[in-house]
Amino acid sequence: MANFEHGDFHARIVGSFASQGAMTMIGAELTRISHGVVEIELPFDTKLTQQHGILHAGVIATGLETACTYAAYTMIDTDASLLTIEFKVNLMSPGRGSRFLFRGEVTRPGTNIIVTDGRGYAVGDGPAKLIASMSGTAMVVRDREGFQD
Amino acid sequence: MANFEHGDFHARIVGSFASQGAMTMIGAELTRISHGVVEIELPFDTKLTQQHGILHAGVIATGLETACTYAAYTMIDTDASLLTIEFKVNLMSPGRGSRFLFRGEVTRPGTNIIVTDGRGYAVGDGPAKLIASMSGTAMVVRDREGFQD
Amino acid sequence: MANFEHGDFHARIVGSFASQGAMTMIGAELTRISHGVVEIELPFDTKLTQQHGILHAGVIATGLETACTYAAYTMIDTDASLLTIEFKVNLMSPGRGSRFLFRGEVTRPGTNIIVTDGRGYAVGDGPAKLIASMSGTAMVVRDREGFQD
Amino acid sequence: MANFEHGDFHARIVGSFASQGAMTMIGAELTRISHGVVEIELPFDTKLTQQHGILHAGVIATGLETACTYAAYTMIDTDASLLTIEFKVNLMSPGRGSRFLFRGEVTRPGTNIIVTDGRGYAVGDGPAKLIASMSGTAMVVRDREGFQD
Repeated sequence: MANFEHGDFHARIVGSFASQGAMTMIGAELTRISHGVVEIELPFDTKLTQQHGILHAGVIATGLETACTYAAYTMIDTDASLLTIEFKVNLMSPGRGSRFLFRGEVTRPGTNIIVTDGRGYAVGDGPAKLIASMSGTAMVVRDREGFQD
Repeated sequence: MANFEHGDFHARIVGSFASQGAMTMIGAELTRISHGVVEIELPFDTKLTQQHGILHAGVIATGLETACTYAAYTMIDTDASLLTIEFKVNLMSPGRGSRFLFRGEVTRPGTNIIVTDGRGYAVGDGPAKLIASMSGTAMVVRDREGFQD
Repeated sequence: MANFEHGDFHARIVGSFASQGAMTMIGAELTRISHGVVEIELPFDTKLTQQHGILHAGVIATGLETACTYAAYTMIDTDASLLTIEFKVNLMSPGRGSRFLFRGEVTRPGTNIIVTDGRGYAVGDGPAKLIASMSGTAMVVRDREGFQD
Repeated sequence: MANFEHGDFHARIVGSFASQGAMTMIGAELTRISHGVVEIELPFDTKLTQQHGILHAGVIATGLETACTYAAYTMIDTDASLLTIEFKVNLMSPGRGSRFLFRGEVTRPGTNIIVTDGRGYAVGDGPAKLIASMSGTAMVVRDREGFQD
Protein backbone atom coordinates (compact mmCIF):
# COMPACT_ATOMS: atom_id res chain seq x y z
CA MET A 1 0.00 0.00 0.00
CA ALA A 2 1.05 3.52 -0.62
CA ASN A 3 2.62 5.27 2.30
CA PHE A 4 0.95 8.62 2.71
CA GLU A 5 3.17 10.02 5.45
CA HIS A 6 4.06 13.51 4.41
CA GLY A 7 7.76 13.26 5.07
CA ASP A 8 8.24 10.41 2.67
CA PHE A 9 6.94 11.91 -0.50
CA HIS A 10 8.02 15.43 0.41
CA ALA A 11 11.72 14.59 0.56
CA ARG A 12 11.48 12.36 -2.48
CA ILE A 13 9.84 15.05 -4.60
CA VAL A 14 12.19 17.80 -3.46
CA GLY A 15 15.19 15.63 -4.38
CA SER A 16 13.71 14.53 -7.66
CA PHE A 17 12.77 18.07 -8.67
CA ALA A 18 16.29 19.29 -7.92
CA SER A 19 17.70 16.65 -10.25
CA GLN A 20 15.70 17.87 -13.24
CA GLY A 21 17.83 19.87 -15.62
CA ALA A 22 14.68 21.20 -17.25
CA MET A 23 13.38 22.76 -14.02
CA THR A 24 16.64 24.65 -13.56
CA MET A 25 16.58 25.68 -17.21
CA ILE A 26 13.13 27.27 -17.02
CA GLY A 27 13.71 28.77 -13.55
CA ALA A 28 10.97 26.81 -11.81
CA GLU A 29 10.61 26.20 -8.11
CA LEU A 30 8.42 23.89 -6.06
CA THR A 31 6.05 25.96 -3.97
CA ARG A 32 3.57 23.39 -2.62
CA ILE A 33 3.71 19.68 -1.95
CA SER A 34 0.69 18.14 -0.31
CA HIS A 35 -1.13 14.85 -0.62
CA GLY A 36 -2.45 14.76 -4.17
CA VAL A 37 -1.55 18.36 -5.01
CA VAL A 38 1.74 19.91 -6.15
CA GLU A 39 2.43 23.46 -7.31
CA ILE A 40 5.31 24.86 -9.30
CA GLU A 41 6.01 28.52 -9.98
CA LEU A 42 8.28 30.39 -12.33
CA PRO A 43 8.94 34.03 -13.15
CA PHE A 44 8.52 35.31 -16.68
CA ASP A 45 11.73 35.43 -18.67
CA THR A 46 12.29 36.28 -22.34
CA LYS A 47 14.10 32.96 -22.75
CA LEU A 48 10.74 31.22 -22.21
CA THR A 49 8.87 32.93 -25.03
CA GLN A 50 7.33 32.00 -28.35
CA GLN A 51 7.23 34.32 -31.33
CA HIS A 52 4.70 36.79 -29.86
CA GLY A 53 6.76 37.33 -26.71
CA ILE A 54 4.47 35.35 -24.43
CA LEU A 55 5.12 32.12 -22.56
CA HIS A 56 5.73 29.25 -24.99
CA ALA A 57 3.02 26.58 -25.00
CA GLY A 58 5.76 24.02 -24.45
CA VAL A 59 6.92 25.78 -21.30
CA ILE A 60 3.32 25.79 -20.08
CA ALA A 61 3.18 22.07 -20.82
CA THR A 62 6.47 21.56 -18.99
CA GLY A 63 5.15 23.26 -15.86
CA LEU A 64 1.82 21.46 -15.95
CA GLU A 65 3.26 18.03 -16.68
CA THR A 66 5.81 18.34 -13.89
CA ALA A 67 3.25 19.52 -11.33
CA CYS A 68 0.87 16.72 -12.29
CA THR A 69 3.55 14.04 -12.19
CA TYR A 70 4.69 15.08 -8.71
CA ALA A 71 1.08 15.22 -7.53
CA ALA A 72 0.89 11.56 -8.60
CA TYR A 73 4.18 10.82 -6.79
CA THR A 74 2.48 11.77 -3.52
CA MET A 75 0.16 8.79 -3.95
CA ILE A 76 2.45 5.88 -4.79
CA ASP A 77 4.68 3.56 -2.79
CA THR A 78 8.16 4.84 -2.21
CA ASP A 79 9.59 1.88 -4.15
CA ALA A 80 7.41 2.57 -7.15
CA SER A 81 7.98 5.08 -9.92
CA LEU A 82 5.86 6.76 -12.58
CA LEU A 83 5.88 6.96 -16.35
CA THR A 84 3.84 9.66 -18.01
CA ILE A 85 1.84 7.99 -20.75
CA GLU A 86 0.10 10.99 -22.23
CA PHE A 87 -1.20 14.44 -21.49
CA LYS A 88 -3.41 17.01 -23.16
CA VAL A 89 -3.16 20.74 -22.74
CA ASN A 90 -5.80 23.37 -23.50
CA LEU A 91 -4.48 26.90 -23.91
CA MET A 92 -7.08 29.35 -22.70
CA SER A 93 -5.45 32.76 -22.49
CA PRO A 94 -2.11 34.13 -23.66
CA GLY A 95 0.72 33.35 -21.23
CA ARG A 96 1.33 36.98 -20.37
CA GLY A 97 2.37 38.01 -16.87
CA SER A 98 5.23 38.44 -14.48
CA ARG A 99 4.87 35.06 -12.79
CA PHE A 100 3.17 31.75 -13.48
CA LEU A 101 1.79 29.03 -11.24
CA PHE A 102 1.12 25.45 -12.29
CA ARG A 103 -1.00 23.25 -10.05
CA GLY A 104 -1.26 19.49 -10.53
CA GLU A 105 -3.91 17.42 -8.79
CA VAL A 106 -4.72 13.74 -8.72
CA THR A 107 -8.20 13.13 -10.08
CA ARG A 108 -8.10 9.35 -9.92
CA PRO A 109 -5.49 7.46 -7.90
CA GLY A 110 -4.89 3.83 -8.80
CA THR A 111 -2.60 0.86 -8.43
CA ASN A 112 -1.64 0.88 -12.11
CA ILE A 113 -2.87 4.11 -13.63
CA ILE A 114 -3.13 7.57 -12.09
CA VAL A 115 -5.12 10.32 -13.76
CA THR A 116 -4.23 13.93 -13.01
CA ASP A 117 -5.55 17.36 -13.88
CA GLY A 118 -3.57 20.57 -13.92
CA ARG A 119 -4.25 24.27 -14.19
CA GLY A 120 -1.82 27.02 -15.16
CA TYR A 121 -2.26 30.62 -14.03
CA ALA A 122 -0.63 33.96 -14.70
CA VAL A 123 -0.21 35.47 -11.25
CA GLY A 124 0.76 39.00 -10.37
CA ASP A 125 -0.75 42.03 -8.72
CA GLY A 126 -4.36 41.35 -9.65
CA PRO A 127 -6.37 38.13 -9.54
CA ALA A 128 -4.77 35.01 -11.00
CA LYS A 129 -5.72 34.42 -14.63
CA LEU A 130 -6.33 30.89 -15.89
CA ILE A 131 -4.10 30.38 -18.93
CA ALA A 132 -4.16 26.61 -19.47
CA SER A 133 -5.46 23.27 -18.28
CA MET A 134 -4.02 19.79 -18.55
CA SER A 135 -5.35 16.29 -18.24
CA GLY A 136 -2.76 13.52 -17.99
CA THR A 137 -2.20 9.85 -17.38
CA ALA A 138 0.71 8.16 -15.63
CA MET A 139 1.51 4.49 -15.22
CA VAL A 140 2.85 3.19 -11.93
CA VAL A 141 5.96 1.11 -12.54
CA ARG A 142 7.49 -1.36 -10.10
CA ASP A 143 10.78 -3.15 -10.67
CA ARG A 144 11.02 -0.79 -13.62
CA GLU A 145 9.05 -3.29 -15.69
CA GLY A 146 7.67 -0.52 -17.81
CA PHE A 147 11.01 0.97 -18.73
CA GLN A 148 12.25 -1.83 -20.92
CA ASP A 149 9.04 -1.72 -22.91
CA MET B 1 -6.76 32.41 -50.49
CA ALA B 2 -3.59 31.20 -48.87
CA ASN B 3 -0.46 31.86 -50.82
CA PHE B 4 1.49 28.64 -51.07
CA GLU B 5 4.62 30.03 -52.72
CA HIS B 6 7.54 28.60 -50.86
CA GLY B 7 9.40 31.84 -50.35
CA ASP B 8 6.60 33.46 -48.43
CA PHE B 9 6.15 31.06 -45.62
CA HIS B 10 9.79 30.01 -45.57
CA ALA B 11 11.08 33.48 -44.71
CA ARG B 12 8.22 34.09 -42.29
CA ILE B 13 8.86 30.86 -40.39
CA VAL B 14 12.63 31.35 -40.27
CA GLY B 15 12.15 34.82 -38.81
CA SER B 16 9.48 33.75 -36.38
CA PHE B 17 11.51 30.78 -35.17
CA ALA B 18 14.54 33.01 -34.57
CA SER B 19 12.42 35.30 -32.39
CA GLN B 20 11.43 32.50 -30.00
CA GLY B 21 13.38 32.65 -26.78
CA ALA B 22 12.32 29.09 -26.02
CA MET B 23 13.90 27.69 -29.20
CA THR B 24 17.24 29.26 -28.31
CA MET B 25 16.89 28.03 -24.74
CA ILE B 26 16.45 24.38 -25.73
CA GLY B 27 19.02 24.55 -28.55
CA ALA B 28 16.59 23.78 -31.35
CA GLU B 29 17.07 24.45 -35.03
CA LEU B 30 14.73 24.37 -38.00
CA THR B 31 15.83 21.63 -40.37
CA ARG B 32 12.93 21.36 -42.81
CA ILE B 33 10.23 23.72 -44.01
CA SER B 34 7.95 22.48 -46.73
CA HIS B 35 4.30 22.86 -47.55
CA GLY B 36 2.44 21.27 -44.66
CA VAL B 37 5.53 19.77 -43.00
CA VAL B 38 8.10 21.32 -40.66
CA GLU B 39 10.92 19.63 -38.78
CA ILE B 40 12.91 20.80 -35.78
CA GLU B 41 15.99 19.12 -34.33
CA LEU B 42 17.91 19.46 -31.12
CA PRO B 43 20.91 17.77 -29.56
CA PHE B 44 20.62 16.11 -26.17
CA ASP B 45 21.75 18.27 -23.28
CA THR B 46 21.56 17.64 -19.54
CA LYS B 47 19.70 20.93 -19.14
CA LEU B 48 16.76 19.34 -20.97
CA THR B 49 16.27 16.39 -18.65
CA GLN B 50 13.71 15.15 -16.17
CA GLN B 51 14.61 13.25 -13.01
CA HIS B 52 15.71 10.04 -14.78
CA GLY B 53 18.17 11.90 -16.99
CA ILE B 54 16.14 11.58 -20.15
CA LEU B 55 14.47 14.28 -22.24
CA HIS B 56 11.73 16.02 -20.25
CA ALA B 57 8.21 15.39 -21.53
CA GLY B 58 7.74 19.16 -21.61
CA VAL B 59 10.71 19.58 -23.91
CA ILE B 60 9.26 16.90 -26.16
CA ALA B 61 5.97 18.82 -26.12
CA THR B 62 7.84 22.05 -26.90
CA GLY B 63 9.50 20.52 -29.95
CA LEU B 64 6.31 18.89 -31.21
CA GLU B 65 4.08 21.89 -30.64
CA THR B 66 6.51 24.21 -32.41
CA ALA B 67 6.95 21.90 -35.40
CA CYS B 68 3.18 21.46 -35.71
CA THR B 69 2.46 25.17 -35.42
CA TYR B 70 4.94 26.06 -38.14
CA ALA B 71 3.58 23.29 -40.33
CA ALA B 72 0.23 25.06 -40.01
CA TYR B 73 1.88 28.42 -40.80
CA THR B 74 2.80 27.05 -44.23
CA MET B 75 -0.90 26.84 -45.04
CA ILE B 76 -2.32 30.21 -44.03
CA ASP B 77 -2.41 33.65 -45.60
CA THR B 78 0.59 35.83 -44.86
CA ASP B 79 -1.66 38.35 -43.08
CA ALA B 80 -3.14 35.71 -40.81
CA SER B 81 -1.70 34.26 -37.65
CA LEU B 82 -2.29 31.16 -35.53
CA LEU B 83 -3.30 30.45 -31.97
CA THR B 84 -2.71 26.98 -30.61
CA ILE B 85 -5.93 25.90 -28.94
CA GLU B 86 -4.88 22.53 -27.60
CA PHE B 87 -2.57 19.61 -28.13
CA LYS B 88 -2.17 16.10 -26.83
CA VAL B 89 1.08 14.20 -26.54
CA ASN B 90 1.58 10.45 -26.21
CA LEU B 91 4.96 9.41 -24.84
CA MET B 92 5.95 6.11 -26.36
CA SER B 93 9.58 5.46 -25.49
CA PRO B 94 12.02 7.16 -23.13
CA GLY B 95 13.60 10.27 -24.64
CA ARG B 96 17.08 8.80 -24.68
CA GLY B 97 19.55 9.60 -27.45
CA SER B 98 22.10 12.05 -28.74
CA ARG B 99 19.75 13.98 -30.98
CA PHE B 100 16.01 14.41 -31.41
CA LEU B 101 13.83 15.26 -34.38
CA PHE B 102 10.29 16.62 -34.20
CA ARG B 103 8.13 16.56 -37.32
CA GLY B 104 4.86 18.44 -37.55
CA GLU B 105 2.37 17.81 -40.35
CA VAL B 106 -0.96 19.31 -41.28
CA THR B 107 -3.66 16.65 -41.19
CA ARG B 108 -6.57 18.94 -41.94
CA PRO B 109 -6.13 22.47 -43.33
CA GLY B 110 -8.99 24.88 -42.89
CA THR B 111 -10.05 28.51 -43.01
CA ASN B 112 -10.70 28.65 -39.27
CA ILE B 113 -9.22 25.54 -37.70
CA ILE B 114 -6.12 23.59 -38.65
CA VAL B 115 -5.47 20.12 -37.25
CA THR B 116 -1.89 18.87 -37.08
CA ASP B 117 -0.10 15.70 -36.10
CA GLY B 118 3.47 15.40 -34.93
CA ARG B 119 6.01 12.69 -34.29
CA GLY B 120 9.15 12.88 -32.17
CA TYR B 121 12.15 10.65 -32.77
CA ALA B 122 15.44 9.91 -31.09
CA VAL B 123 17.94 9.93 -33.94
CA GLY B 124 21.53 8.80 -33.86
CA ASP B 125 23.68 6.13 -35.44
CA GLY B 126 20.98 3.49 -35.75
CA PRO B 127 17.43 3.76 -37.01
CA ALA B 128 15.29 6.60 -35.67
CA LYS B 129 13.21 5.57 -32.65
CA LEU B 130 9.69 6.93 -32.24
CA ILE B 131 9.47 8.51 -28.79
CA ALA B 132 6.27 10.54 -28.93
CA SER B 133 3.30 11.63 -31.00
CA MET B 134 1.18 14.74 -30.88
CA SER B 135 -2.20 15.77 -32.16
CA GLY B 136 -3.01 19.46 -32.03
CA THR B 137 -5.48 22.13 -33.04
CA ALA B 138 -4.77 25.73 -34.04
CA MET B 139 -7.16 28.56 -34.78
CA VAL B 140 -6.49 30.92 -37.66
CA VAL B 141 -6.73 34.51 -36.48
CA ARG B 142 -7.14 37.57 -38.67
CA ASP B 143 -7.04 41.14 -37.44
CA ARG B 144 -5.96 39.50 -34.18
CA GLU B 145 -9.61 39.01 -33.31
CA GLY B 146 -8.82 35.94 -31.30
CA PHE B 147 -6.17 37.57 -29.16
CA GLN B 148 -8.46 39.81 -27.15
CA ASP B 149 -10.64 36.85 -26.28
CA MET C 1 -23.18 39.95 -25.66
CA ALA C 2 -24.45 36.60 -24.55
CA ASN C 3 -27.89 36.62 -23.08
CA PHE C 4 -27.76 34.71 -19.84
CA GLU C 5 -31.47 34.73 -19.04
CA HIS C 6 -32.37 31.23 -18.00
CA GLY C 7 -35.44 30.89 -20.17
CA ASP C 8 -33.55 31.46 -23.37
CA PHE C 9 -30.99 28.75 -23.18
CA HIS C 10 -33.24 26.37 -21.27
CA ALA C 11 -35.86 26.15 -24.01
CA ARG C 12 -33.23 26.07 -26.71
CA ILE C 13 -31.36 23.17 -25.12
CA VAL C 14 -34.50 21.17 -24.37
CA GLY C 15 -35.59 21.51 -27.99
CA SER C 16 -32.17 20.73 -29.37
CA PHE C 17 -31.73 17.69 -27.14
CA ALA C 18 -35.11 16.32 -28.22
CA SER C 19 -34.04 16.57 -31.87
CA GLN C 20 -30.99 14.34 -31.35
CA GLY C 21 -31.58 10.85 -32.65
CA ALA C 22 -28.57 9.65 -30.68
CA MET C 23 -30.03 10.75 -27.34
CA THR C 24 -33.19 8.77 -27.98
CA MET C 25 -31.13 5.81 -29.14
CA ILE C 26 -29.10 5.60 -25.94
CA GLY C 27 -32.07 6.40 -23.67
CA ALA C 28 -30.64 9.63 -22.27
CA GLU C 29 -32.53 12.42 -20.60
CA LEU C 30 -31.61 15.95 -19.61
CA THR C 31 -31.72 16.25 -15.85
CA ARG C 32 -30.08 19.62 -15.20
CA ILE C 33 -29.65 22.82 -17.18
CA SER C 34 -28.07 25.73 -15.41
CA HIS C 35 -25.69 28.50 -16.41
CA GLY C 36 -22.47 26.76 -17.39
CA VAL C 37 -23.53 23.29 -16.20
CA VAL C 38 -25.64 20.61 -17.88
CA GLU C 39 -26.31 17.05 -16.74
CA ILE C 40 -27.55 14.05 -18.68
CA GLU C 41 -28.56 10.70 -17.24
CA LEU C 42 -29.24 7.31 -18.69
CA PRO C 43 -30.14 3.90 -17.31
CA PHE C 44 -27.94 0.90 -18.04
CA ASP C 45 -29.09 -1.21 -20.95
CA THR C 46 -27.43 -4.20 -22.60
CA LYS C 47 -27.69 -2.40 -25.94
CA LEU C 48 -25.09 0.09 -24.64
CA THR C 49 -22.38 -2.43 -23.83
CA GLN C 50 -18.94 -3.34 -25.08
CA GLN C 51 -17.60 -6.89 -25.07
CA HIS C 52 -17.26 -7.21 -21.30
CA GLY C 53 -20.89 -6.24 -20.69
CA ILE C 54 -20.12 -2.79 -19.32
CA LEU C 55 -20.95 0.62 -20.76
CA HIS C 56 -19.15 1.18 -24.07
CA ALA C 57 -16.47 3.88 -23.99
CA GLY C 58 -18.18 5.45 -26.98
CA VAL C 59 -21.45 5.72 -25.09
CA ILE C 60 -19.57 7.36 -22.23
CA ALA C 61 -18.05 9.77 -24.75
CA THR C 62 -21.51 10.42 -26.21
CA GLY C 63 -22.92 11.35 -22.80
CA LEU C 64 -19.95 13.51 -21.85
CA GLU C 65 -19.69 15.30 -25.18
CA THR C 66 -23.39 16.10 -25.21
CA ALA C 67 -23.40 17.39 -21.63
CA CYS C 68 -20.33 19.54 -22.31
CA THR C 69 -21.70 20.94 -25.55
CA TYR C 70 -24.98 21.97 -23.92
CA ALA C 71 -23.09 23.49 -21.00
CA ALA C 72 -21.36 25.66 -23.60
CA TYR C 73 -24.73 26.48 -25.22
CA THR C 74 -25.78 28.16 -21.97
CA MET C 75 -23.04 30.74 -22.52
CA ILE C 76 -23.47 31.86 -26.12
CA ASP C 77 -25.78 34.25 -27.92
CA THR C 78 -29.05 32.79 -29.04
CA ASP C 79 -28.14 33.49 -32.68
CA ALA C 80 -24.81 31.69 -32.39
CA SER C 81 -24.14 27.98 -32.60
CA LEU C 82 -21.33 25.65 -31.58
CA LEU C 83 -19.05 23.22 -33.34
CA THR C 84 -17.17 20.68 -31.24
CA ILE C 85 -13.56 20.80 -32.36
CA GLU C 86 -12.10 18.08 -30.20
CA PHE C 87 -12.48 16.23 -26.93
CA LYS C 88 -10.46 13.84 -24.83
CA VAL C 89 -11.85 11.21 -22.53
CA ASN C 90 -10.09 9.42 -19.67
CA LEU C 91 -11.71 6.18 -18.58
CA MET C 92 -11.14 5.71 -14.88
CA SER C 93 -13.35 2.84 -13.72
CA PRO C 94 -15.43 0.27 -15.58
CA GLY C 95 -18.84 1.61 -16.62
CA ARG C 96 -20.74 -0.77 -14.38
CA GLY C 97 -23.95 0.29 -12.66
CA SER C 98 -27.67 0.68 -13.01
CA ARG C 99 -27.62 4.34 -13.98
CA PHE C 100 -25.09 6.87 -15.26
CA LEU C 101 -24.79 10.62 -14.94
CA PHE C 102 -22.73 12.88 -17.20
CA ARG C 103 -22.01 16.42 -16.09
CA GLY C 104 -20.56 19.03 -18.44
CA GLU C 105 -19.18 22.32 -17.16
CA VAL C 106 -17.68 25.36 -18.86
CA THR C 107 -14.11 25.87 -17.71
CA ARG C 108 -13.35 28.81 -19.97
CA PRO C 109 -16.04 30.81 -21.74
CA GLY C 110 -15.02 32.86 -24.75
CA THR C 111 -16.19 34.74 -27.80
CA ASN C 112 -14.60 32.27 -30.21
CA ILE C 113 -13.55 29.22 -28.24
CA ILE C 114 -15.20 27.59 -25.23
CA VAL C 115 -13.37 25.00 -23.14
CA THR C 116 -15.41 22.49 -21.16
CA ASP C 117 -14.77 19.70 -18.70
CA GLY C 118 -17.00 16.75 -18.00
CA ARG C 119 -17.28 13.97 -15.49
CA GLY C 120 -19.16 10.69 -15.82
CA TYR C 121 -20.46 8.75 -12.83
CA ALA C 122 -22.08 5.42 -12.15
CA VAL C 123 -24.93 6.23 -9.80
CA GLY C 124 -27.07 3.84 -7.84
CA ASP C 125 -27.77 2.95 -4.25
CA GLY C 126 -24.33 3.80 -2.88
CA PRO C 127 -22.12 6.81 -3.50
CA ALA C 128 -21.60 7.91 -7.09
CA LYS C 129 -18.48 6.39 -8.67
CA LEU C 130 -16.35 8.46 -11.04
CA ILE C 131 -15.96 6.46 -14.25
CA ALA C 132 -14.63 9.00 -16.74
CA SER C 133 -13.58 12.57 -17.35
CA MET C 134 -13.59 14.68 -20.50
CA SER C 135 -11.93 17.86 -21.62
CA GLY C 136 -13.28 19.44 -24.78
CA THR C 137 -13.14 22.45 -27.05
CA ALA C 138 -15.96 24.03 -29.02
CA MET C 139 -15.89 26.86 -31.54
CA VAL C 140 -18.61 29.50 -31.53
CA VAL C 141 -20.01 29.93 -35.02
CA ARG C 142 -22.07 32.84 -36.27
CA ASP C 143 -23.72 33.02 -39.69
CA ARG C 144 -22.63 29.39 -39.90
CA GLU C 145 -19.26 30.56 -41.18
CA GLY C 146 -17.56 27.58 -39.67
CA PHE C 147 -19.77 25.02 -41.30
CA GLN C 148 -18.56 25.47 -44.83
CA ASP C 149 -14.96 25.06 -43.72
CA MET D 1 5.09 -13.43 -26.86
CA ALA D 2 2.10 -12.34 -28.84
CA ASN D 3 0.84 -14.84 -31.31
CA PHE D 4 0.46 -13.09 -34.62
CA GLU D 5 -1.20 -15.93 -36.54
CA HIS D 6 -4.11 -14.46 -38.36
CA GLY D 7 -6.67 -17.06 -37.36
CA ASP D 8 -6.23 -16.41 -33.66
CA PHE D 9 -7.02 -12.77 -33.46
CA HIS D 10 -9.47 -12.85 -36.33
CA ALA D 11 -11.84 -15.27 -34.61
CA ARG D 12 -11.40 -13.57 -31.27
CA ILE D 13 -12.24 -10.14 -32.66
CA VAL D 14 -15.22 -11.38 -34.67
CA GLY D 15 -16.65 -13.03 -31.55
CA SER D 16 -15.93 -10.07 -29.32
CA PHE D 17 -17.43 -7.59 -31.78
CA ALA D 18 -20.61 -9.69 -32.04
CA SER D 19 -20.99 -9.57 -28.25
CA GLN D 20 -21.05 -5.76 -28.15
CA GLY D 21 -24.54 -4.41 -27.68
CA ALA D 22 -23.34 -1.00 -28.79
CA MET D 23 -22.17 -2.25 -32.20
CA THR D 24 -25.58 -3.76 -32.90
CA MET D 25 -27.25 -0.59 -31.65
CA ILE D 26 -25.39 1.68 -34.07
CA GLY D 27 -25.56 -0.79 -36.96
CA ALA D 28 -21.82 -1.28 -37.31
CA GLU D 29 -20.05 -4.14 -39.01
CA LEU D 30 -16.44 -5.27 -39.09
CA THR D 31 -15.08 -4.91 -42.59
CA ARG D 32 -11.35 -5.44 -42.14
CA ILE D 33 -9.20 -7.28 -39.63
CA SER D 34 -5.50 -7.41 -40.31
CA HIS D 35 -2.37 -7.27 -38.20
CA GLY D 36 -2.41 -3.84 -36.56
CA VAL D 37 -5.35 -2.50 -38.57
CA VAL D 38 -9.10 -2.91 -38.09
CA GLU D 39 -11.94 -1.20 -39.94
CA ILE D 40 -15.57 -0.78 -38.99
CA GLU D 41 -18.33 0.60 -41.20
CA LEU D 42 -21.84 1.78 -40.61
CA PRO D 43 -24.61 3.25 -42.73
CA PHE D 44 -26.09 6.62 -41.87
CA ASP D 45 -29.27 6.44 -39.84
CA THR D 46 -31.32 9.22 -38.27
CA LYS D 47 -31.04 7.44 -34.92
CA LEU D 48 -27.31 8.28 -34.95
CA THR D 49 -27.67 12.04 -35.27
CA GLN D 50 -27.03 15.12 -33.20
CA GLN D 51 -29.18 18.24 -33.36
CA HIS D 52 -28.08 19.33 -36.85
CA GLY D 53 -28.98 15.96 -38.37
CA ILE D 54 -25.41 14.81 -38.85
CA LEU D 55 -23.55 11.92 -37.22
CA HIS D 56 -23.21 12.51 -33.46
CA ALA D 57 -19.64 13.10 -32.26
CA GLY D 58 -20.19 10.33 -29.73
CA VAL D 59 -21.06 7.86 -32.48
CA ILE D 60 -17.90 8.90 -34.31
CA ALA D 61 -15.99 8.30 -31.07
CA THR D 62 -17.69 4.93 -30.68
CA GLY D 63 -16.62 3.83 -34.15
CA LEU D 64 -13.07 5.11 -33.77
CA GLU D 65 -12.53 3.74 -30.27
CA THR D 66 -13.81 0.30 -31.27
CA ALA D 67 -11.68 0.13 -34.42
CA CYS D 68 -8.60 1.24 -32.47
CA THR D 69 -9.18 -1.22 -29.63
CA TYR D 70 -9.55 -4.16 -32.01
CA ALA D 71 -6.46 -3.03 -33.91
CA ALA D 72 -4.64 -3.34 -30.58
CA TYR D 73 -6.22 -6.77 -29.99
CA THR D 74 -4.40 -8.04 -33.07
CA MET D 75 -1.10 -7.44 -31.29
CA ILE D 76 -1.55 -9.01 -27.86
CA ASP D 77 -1.39 -12.55 -26.48
CA THR D 78 -4.60 -14.48 -26.69
CA ASP D 79 -4.70 -14.77 -22.89
CA ALA D 80 -4.33 -11.02 -22.42
CA SER D 81 -7.00 -8.38 -22.64
CA LEU D 82 -7.11 -4.61 -23.10
CA LEU D 83 -8.42 -1.67 -21.15
CA THR D 84 -8.84 1.63 -22.94
CA ILE D 85 -7.22 4.27 -20.76
CA GLU D 86 -7.98 7.36 -22.76
CA PHE D 87 -8.63 8.67 -26.24
CA LYS D 88 -8.84 12.01 -27.97
CA VAL D 89 -10.95 12.80 -31.00
CA ASN D 90 -10.59 15.70 -33.42
CA LEU D 91 -13.67 16.46 -35.48
CA MET D 92 -12.62 17.79 -38.86
CA SER D 93 -15.69 17.87 -41.07
CA PRO D 94 -19.39 17.39 -40.41
CA GLY D 95 -20.40 13.73 -40.27
CA ARG D 96 -22.57 13.95 -43.35
CA GLY D 97 -22.87 11.04 -45.78
CA SER D 98 -24.56 7.77 -46.53
CA ARG D 99 -21.92 5.54 -45.01
CA PHE D 100 -18.98 5.91 -42.61
CA LEU D 101 -15.72 4.03 -42.22
CA PHE D 102 -13.57 4.01 -39.09
CA ARG D 103 -10.02 2.70 -39.32
CA GLY D 104 -7.92 1.97 -36.26
CA GLU D 105 -4.18 1.39 -36.47
CA VAL D 106 -1.51 0.53 -33.95
CA THR D 107 1.10 3.29 -33.82
CA ARG D 108 3.14 1.84 -30.98
CA PRO D 109 2.80 -1.76 -29.82
CA GLY D 110 4.03 -2.63 -26.34
CA THR D 111 3.96 -5.16 -23.56
CA ASN D 112 2.06 -2.85 -21.22
CA ILE D 113 0.77 0.08 -23.23
CA ILE D 114 -0.43 0.20 -26.83
CA VAL D 115 -0.92 3.50 -28.64
CA THR D 116 -3.34 3.64 -31.55
CA ASP D 117 -4.48 6.18 -34.10
CA GLY D 118 -7.76 6.21 -35.92
CA ARG D 119 -9.36 7.99 -38.82
CA GLY D 120 -13.04 8.36 -39.62
CA TYR D 121 -14.34 8.92 -43.16
CA ALA D 122 -17.63 9.66 -44.82
CA VAL D 123 -17.71 7.29 -47.78
CA GLY D 124 -20.11 7.30 -50.66
CA ASP D 125 -20.06 7.82 -54.39
CA GLY D 126 -17.20 10.30 -54.47
CA PRO D 127 -13.84 10.24 -52.72
CA ALA D 128 -13.81 9.44 -48.99
CA LYS D 129 -13.92 12.56 -46.82
CA LEU D 130 -11.90 12.67 -43.60
CA ILE D 131 -14.30 13.62 -40.80
CA ALA D 132 -12.35 12.80 -37.65
CA SER D 133 -9.14 11.47 -36.15
CA MET D 134 -8.44 9.73 -32.87
CA SER D 135 -5.40 9.04 -30.78
CA GLY D 136 -5.82 6.52 -27.99
CA THR D 137 -4.03 4.52 -25.33
CA ALA D 138 -4.84 1.02 -24.10
CA MET D 139 -3.33 -0.96 -21.26
CA VAL D 140 -2.62 -4.66 -21.68
CA VAL D 141 -4.08 -6.60 -18.76
CA ARG D 142 -3.17 -10.14 -17.77
CA ASP D 143 -4.94 -12.13 -15.04
CA ARG D 144 -7.34 -9.19 -15.11
CA GLU D 145 -5.10 -7.36 -12.68
CA GLY D 146 -6.20 -4.04 -14.04
CA PHE D 147 -9.89 -4.66 -13.67
CA GLN D 148 -10.06 -4.57 -9.91
CA ASP D 149 -8.23 -1.25 -9.84
